[in-house]
Amino acid sequence: MSSALRTLTVALGERAYPIVIGADLIGDSARYRPYIPGKQVMIVTNETVAPLYLARVEAALTGYQVATVVLPDGEQYKTLGVLDQVYTALLEQRFDRRCTLVALGGGVVGDMTGFAAASYQRGVNFIQVPTTLLSQVDSSVGGKTGVNHPLGKNMIGAFHQPQCVIIDTATLDTLPDRELSAGLAEVIKYGLISDAEFFVWLEQNMPALMARDAAALSYAIERSCADKAAVVAADERESGQRALLNLGHTFGHAIETGMGYGSWLHGEAVGAGMCMAAAMSRRLGWLSEQQFRRVERLVAAAGLPVGPPDSISPDRFMALMAVDKKVLDGQMRLVLLQDIGRSVVTADFDPAALKQTLYAA
Amino acid sequence: MSSALRTLTVALGERAYPIVIGADLIGDSARYRPYIPGKQVMIVTNETVAPLYLARVEAALTGYQVATVVLPDGEQYKTLGVLDQVYTALLEQRFDRRCTLVALGGGVVGDMTGFAAASYQRGVNFIQVPTTLLSQVDSSVGGKTGVNHPLGKNMIGAFHQPQCVIIDTATLDTLPDRELSAGLAEVIKYGLISDAEFFVWLEQNMPALMARDAAALSYAIERSCADKAAVVAADERESGQRALLNLGHTFGHAIETGMGYGSWLHGEAVGAGMCMAAAMSRRLGWLSEQQFRRVERLVAAAGLPVGPPDSISPDRFMALMAVDKKVLDGQMRLVLLQDIGRSVVTADFDPAALKQTLYAA
Repeated sequence: MSSALRTLTVALGERAYPIVIGADLIGDSARYRPYIPGKQVMIVTNETVAPLYLARVEAALTGYQVATVVLPDGEQYKTLGVLDQVYTALLEQRFDRRCTLVALGGGVVGDMTGFAAASYQRGVNFIQVPTTLLSQVDSSVGGKTGVNHPLGKNMIGAFHQPQCVIIDTATLDTLPDRELSAGLAEVIKYGLISDAEFFVWLEQNMPALMARDAAALSYAIERSCADKAAVVAADERESGQRALLNLGHTFGHAIETGMGYGSWLHGEAVGAGMCMAAAMSRRLGWLSEQQFRRVERLVAAAGLPVGPPDSISPDRFMALMAVDKKVLDGQMRLVLLQDIGRSVVTADFDPAALKQTLYAA
Repeated sequence: MSSALRTLTVALGERAYPIVIGADLIGDSARYRPYIPGKQVMIVTNETVAPLYLARVEAALTGYQVATVVLPDGEQYKTLGVLDQVYTALLEQRFDRRCTLVALGGGVVGDMTGFAAASYQRGVNFIQVPTTLLSQVDSSVGGKTGVNHPLGKNMIGAFHQPQCVIIDTATLDTLPDRELSAGLAEVIKYGLISDAEFFVWLEQNMPALMARDAAALSYAIERSCADKAAVVAADERESGQRALLNLGHTFGHAIETGMGYGSWLHGEAVGAGMCMAAAMSRRLGWLSEQQFRRVERLVAAAGLPVGPPDSISPDRFMALMAVDKKVLDGQMRLVLLQDIGRSVVTADFDPAALKQTLYAA
């Protein structure tokens, strides 16, 4: 059916699982069945994705007891209250602990469905079917699940690995431009943190990616997933190097929380956040002016903002950054750059450099 | 300080932890400190327990950044909404992922605090300080955490093991009689499912336990914890024999949900539920009339109900039982007795026997 099917594995011992990448996989029954041990399947999706893809997924799941929950679309709905709708649907349909949840949508759907799976009856199976570039290259892989709290993003959640990730690259055809750019932020991130060669490839191929060249997108997704799978396999619960994947995220979360969830897309905030991390790294003398400009140029070429919104004052920005999962014993830790393709998680920086970066931004 | 300090271990490899049992441990700093890796400690308790013990726990934790959340008391408050109060307190105080939560109270406080710890920032440490007999012999050991949903008890949760369990037997001095009886239901359970010798000991010593004889209570707690620790070590995530610990619970949960959370105590419902499981086992010819009478007599001697409330009809009872975590692929599984001290989880029973048991009860 699909011409070029690629499979990667997230090597996590007894929790290992495959990531399958190809065009037109979403309606392919054979992609799902080996990963559904029971009889009951709950598809969790949102009101934007449902009209586009729900019928095809349902058709792929004939023979199971299939139910569906359609959530509102947007980061502002990634809450405990909306999550409760999923629990209610599961209980109303009498879903038992051998059931499987299918997350059909972007990062919000994936994170919430994953956390519902982590916590329903103390843990059931789930399958990720990401339909946005951002969720395909980042949030669907690695088992981070959860919801936001009004006081902080992703503050409630669990590590819970899916049974498999099914990435249908053809779903990108329906993705709005703004969401394509948001996904490219996370793609650029992999180049910056550990893959200088990929960063150079991105500098050369950003026009093709923005033009939705299928081969270029497919390559970028596969390389991003491979980079992420390697990090996750080495540090599943983020006791060390996995924190590097948060490059730009401490700055970015402050923007998202400060602007109100749903105003900036996560990827947009990460794009701006990576530029801020690069600017601070330059201020510390770790990056050259020229390296910093390359970062800013690539982020801009992906159609992303290169700095924070004016409406958040530097003092408020600092306060928002202080509520972050990387803060430990009162010390703020940041992911900073020592080169393009080389990053570090550190609390060992001159706080003045952070302040100056915020005032200059 | 404490005359007879006993320590058991829950053998779970890298998640192994001690259960310490003795009088006057609650204010003993040395019991806590080795199990608190960071600087921040959040004590979660309720409005009944706080006036009795909070000051002593706080005094034991000098030197840490200590904060407290006081929840309303009762099973009806074991909800996502009340749990959110804990998250809010943690975020308002800027607690980071190296923090430790201390559950000071009964089963509701322990289950909710444990789930808060399982899900705050995707998992932080916690310590169980159970102050009721029921939580000391059952819910504080084994890592089951969670909250109720209006459609089913304990339907949202996680397996999350504590760093240690501190059981201060002197806290039973302030326990209401009704709660003492409720705790004895779970104690009787251990005798019934796998420890016939302990069941006989309970038949002989129930008057002493009801009279709160310190030595008898201490022995019953230690033996119950040892029985539970062995089961949990063999089957942490309830893929097999751990389900035996649910003897009386499928019937009991139906009573609790049917009557509204907080009307019957959990232990009262389990007491009635064990008698119903015994009655059904007799009906199937697995228990003799005399064995069944011994069960009913011991449950009654503990001051517990031996049958369900009249206000739940058999048909409604059946519907309530159908929403249970032990239901798999539509099949109801029950814990039934083959002897005193020998139990089995099975879906292999004549459904008529269940129906007749409900109509006869």
